[in-house]
Amino acid sequence: MVRIAILGSTGSIGRQALEVVRSLGNRFEVVGLAAGRNLSLLADQIKEFKPRLVSSEAGQLPLGDYQSLSLEELASHPEVDLVVVATSGKAGLTPTLAAIRAGKRIALANKEVLVMAGEIIVNEARQHNVEIFPIDSEHSALWQCLQGEERGKVARLILTASGGPFRNHPLEQLARVTPEEALQHPTWQMGEKVTIDSATLMNKGMEVIEARWLFDMPFENIQVLIHPQSIVHSLVEFVDGSVKAQLSIPDMRLPIQYALSYPERLAIQQFSRIDWGKLGSLTFERPDFNRFPCLKLAVEAGKKGGTYPAVLCAADEVAVKLFLSHRIGFLDISRVVEETLERHQGISHPSLEEILTADRWAREYAENWRR
Amino acid sequence: MVRIAILGSTGSIGRQALEVVRSLGNRFEVVGLAAGRNLSLLADQIKEFKPRLVSSEAGQLPLGDYQSLSLEELASHPEVDLVVVATSGKAGLTPTLAAIRAGKRIALANKEVLVMAGEIIVNEARQHNVEIFPIDSEHSALWQCLQGEERGKVARLILTASGGPFRNHPLEQLARVTPEEALQHPTWQMGEKVTIDSATLMNKGMEVIEARWLFDMPFENIQVLIHPQSIVHSLVEFVDGSVKAQLSIPDMRLPIQYALSYPERLAIQQFSRIDWGKLGSLTFERPDFNRFPCLKLAVEAGKKGGTYPAVLCAADEVAVKLFLSHRIGFLDISRVVEETLERHQGISHPSLEEILTADRWAREYAENWRR
Repeated sequence: MVRIAILGSTGSIGRQALEVVRSLGNRFEVVGLAAGRNLSLLADQIKEFKPRLVSSEAGQLPLGDYQSLSLEELASHPEVDLVVVATSGKAGLTPTLAAIRAGKRIALANKEVLVMAGEIIVNEARQHNVEIFPIDSEHSALWQCLQGEERGKVARLILTASGGPFRNHPLEQLARVTPEEALQHPTWQMGEKVTIDSATLMNKGMEVIEARWLFDMPFENIQVLIHPQSIVHSLVEFVDGSVKAQLSIPDMRLPIQYALSYPERLAIQQFSRIDWGKLGSLTFERPDFNRFPCLKLAVEAGKKGGTYPAVLCAADEVAVKLFLSHRIGFLDISRVVEETLERHQGISHPSLEEILTADRWAREYAENWRR
Repeated sequence: MVRIAILGSTGSIGRQALEVVRSLGNRFEVVGLAAGRNLSLLADQIKEFKPRLVSSEAGQLPLGDYQSLSLEELASHPEVDLVVVATSGKAGLTPTLAAIRAGKRIALANKEVLVMAGEIIVNEARQHNVEIFPIDSEHSALWQCLQGEERGKVARLILTASGGPFRNHPLEQLARVTPEEALQHPTWQMGEKVTIDSATLMNKGMEVIEARWLFDMPFENIQVLIHPQSIVHSLVEFVDGSVKAQLSIPDMRLPIQYALSYPERLAIQQFSRIDWGKLGSLTFERPDFNRFPCLKLAVEAGKKGGTYPAVLCAADEVAVKLFLSHRIGFLDISRVVEETLERHQGISHPSLEEILTADRWAREYAENWRR
């Protein structure tokens, strides 16, 4: 029985993680739940899973017999074996560090943790002999393709991207796309922020940075391919020219379950299988950096390192909010991020405090951006 | 330094195996070569690689200082570590058995060895603790996809097939296709027999039988998919619905090198890489058993087991010869094989002698087939 804590249990990944835990019967015990805003769903989850530990911005809810804790206390609690970090934004950063320092196994869905503080996270994980397992379709695919292979024999990691709703949109019309159009993702159902990031490919740029840290791979050896069908979730090319790919019907429960049950694969009947007779064709194309400037900005910020990726995350979060509230246009998202990065005075090998200071600076700068 | 013997060194696989050995410098020493008909090429190979052991139907050639041996003596010689079985037809059967009994590592390209005598070969290999590594693109792909995975978690092995030149040919015109048309394979350059077997999909049926023995997988869990681009060389579906695929530009040197250097992957610069920007689309379709009756016959013979697969091989070899010499039509190939299988009195768990007797009987029956 693995004792599990889910940070961000009411979000999209958190809910699906609980669905996986429910389907796996008594392999996992949910000992901790943490959620921010959706208190009525959190209350339902507490009733169903009866966790002994709960972290909620609302404090103690009037149900069940649990201990109320901070996110960091929950993530590092002695009764927890595995922490699912399904928070979003920078919220997962300090709880993940707390979990690593307490020697917990980490299943990580919160992109910003590795993008903002990859160097610190990876060094702490190494020091505390902690494994970080990715929960997203692309890094899970890479991780699966790397099983049984020597890391030194990897030539390239290739992350696939659906290309979002604007892959073939006339370039001159991109400036006028509305939040409603940008929220129509062709293949994945996700939260608003990540859906917009998928439309700009900022999402994929952040995944490149994550891959750099998760798999200790130089940026030069990480590529992005547009693959609109979202069936091939990523690929690994080896030094001999052989390529391995991981494929499935898009379903986040698969990478969630893999991260929870690793190294075992479990048979869960409700996952749909690829129907090869009906699949149609799989296509791949190189991304167009003119169409997707955020991808380029992200990779460049990743290469510069230091506090730049944190600034990227912060500026993007603000810019996406401004776009969703109709205060800036779609193409302004990359302009906000670019200008914020340009104005930033980077710090190499920053401390966590320096990263959080850069985050605050970037948010303020981006909030005040004017065209 | 691995001491290697190549049986069938002048054939397509044998020549490419020597090319790989040449490119790998001093990791391998060619201590043995064996070839049948192409004596002038064998003479060139002897001059270049200076093997101490040679097996040739022509006996001692007037060059070099080598020991002349039978195939079986060569395959089991104490100076040999690894035997590449690149012979064709039943020629590889007894040398492979001799190599297994002498504890040699086997790199197997000769389909008929496992199709005719899979049960015997696999049992002997287990008994002598010998590993058999496949040298063909499909089984190498499966083998690569299975690295680091638990065999018990495999749901299905999926072998891809190009579908050959007649995948979209009007069915009613198939009876009239000529050997010249059938020898035009869309994606692979291979010998005549295997090219015709690719056009009928007999080749793929035999590979299903090979996969059954190589990976100890029931026939029910082995499928065939038509994939005309020959980029995805095969796929493995796991119990959780995740699928792994191995991809590359079609180049036999890649699976040859993998089998020789396993578990290491080596960087050989001359292999071409997939150019994702130019790849176009990858398509998959289920095979049409009406168009490809040989595929069905092969899988059925495999399921019946015993001497049936050997009869399948023998009847097919004869039928392909009859077709290539314009004595029967293209569609008659499956008719010859089907009728020979129908008339055969099968023996379960046959001895090698019983398999060879069935082979002789089937050849005679097929030779005398009249429409």
